Amino acid sequence: MSAVEKKAVVLVSGGLDSATCLAIAKSEGYQCYALSFDYGQRSSSELTAAGQLTRYFGALSHQIIPLGIGRLGGSALTDHSVDVPIDGVVLNQIPATYVPARNTVFLSYALAWAEVLHADAIFIGVNALDYSGYPDCRPEYIEAFEKMANLATKASIEGHPIRIRTPLIRMTKAQIVSMGTGLGVDYSLTVSCYQADEEGRACGRCDSCRLRRMGFANAGIVDPTQYFFSPSLT
Amino acid sequence: MSAVEKKAVVLVSGGLDSATCLAIAKSEGYQCYALSFDYGQRSSSELTAAGQLTRYFGALSHQIIPLGIGRLGGSALTDHSVDVPIDGVVLNQIPATYVPARNTVFLSYALAWAEVLHADAIFIGVNALDYSGYPDCRPEYIEAFEKMANLATKASIEGHPIRIRTPLIRMTKAQIVSMGTGLGVDYSLTVSCYQADEEGRACGRCDSCRLRRMGFANAGIVDPTQYFFSPSLT
Repeated sequence: MSAVEKKAVVLVSGGLDSATCLAIAKSEGYQCYALSFDYGQRSSSELTAAGQLTRYFGALSHQIIPLGIGRLGGSALTDHSVDVPIDGVVLNQIPATYVPARNTVFLSYALAWAEVLHADAIFIGVNALDYSGYPDCRPEYIEAFEKMANLATKASIEGHPIRIRTPLIRMTKAQIVSMGTGLGVDYSLTVSCYQADEEGRACGRCDSCRLRRMGFANAGIVDPTQYFFSPSLT
Repeated sequence: MSAVEKKAVVLVSGGLDSATCLAIAKSEGYQCYALSFDYGQRSSSELTAAGQLTRYFGALSHQIIPLGIGRLGGSALTDHSVDVPIDGVVLNQIPATYVPARNTVFLSYALAWAEVLHADAIFIGVNALDYSGYPDCRPEYIEAFEKMANLATKASIEGHPIRIRTPLIRMTKAQIVSMGTGLGVDYSLTVSCYQADEEGRACGRCDSCRLRRMGFANAGIVDPTQYFFSPSLT
């Protein structure tokens, strides 16, 4: 198989990690099929960012799947009656923004598309260091999903296995920012904030913003993020 | 934990197998939460049947999730340009009605709801004998999904594991019909046909109808199914 024929489904949320993941898949020669989800996020600017990123990196297709998962409840990201934690502790606890079985649902759709496309890989930008509170970001979870996936599909029983690729899983945020910058990622297109406004400007204070800011700072790279709370960030 | 506190998410398609599965979960003392999917099936009567069945068995809630999986293509059940096979061979080949990664997607949503509910089990009416062409109906697939699920969720890492229950997996269709009849299932409420009409009447000729008819015949139980092609079934 020549490099140009390799296909990958890439999960693209519109955030910093998935943008970097898309750049990595592209740099490895994959034809990229971008997959996003509309699951009642507070911030619709994430999906706008996802669309900009997939065009920027020349993805062959971008599908946005309406999940309908909000009706099952259980998360601050989909239940607007629950507060988003700001300036909180991330490590060693499960954040209130946890969406139940989120990566399992995301990867399952990716698997469905991968089978239709006869894709070789699924790329997901999970990270075990910064988000250790999420059980479905750990390597042992990814390995178990890959094993299950290769028992699940028509492709797998016909000898065309699928790989679940997690190139960021053991990287720090600073390492991710450095790598992505080297691959040409324009991080001003990405939205990480849990409560970004409609223009994609970030609060700068939620857990996701804090980790992102520290990443740029530790990498020694200028943070291109637009903040709407900028006076408090000095 | 008393029996009355046990909760289960039960996947209910509206067909014969899932109706039996719901009856089994109920008979074991589970509080049942029924989950169905709208994925662009040709036959909307399946979902009508699912609603009737969940009321019949007193499920505490019935959610119908719009999947949006049809846009990913690849199946006769969701792509109306592909013919449904009739009077065909089922065993030892993968039917054209295969939906990619279907059970993985279904079980992933069930897992999300199970975590929110703190449920103990997910019931799915997969069957390895009648549908051996579907890789995601095999015991080794179910075991791999369960292992993955118990690494995926907040509940699992807090010591509340989830069981994937497949009580029908090694039963013949005749055994399923016999067991369900004993548990009070009214099979006239169920729809198995791939191309049932809006009243839920079956063609009697597609693979699903053929397996169902043989099940009743082999069990020696009168088939209550309404057929719209009845003259050809003598």
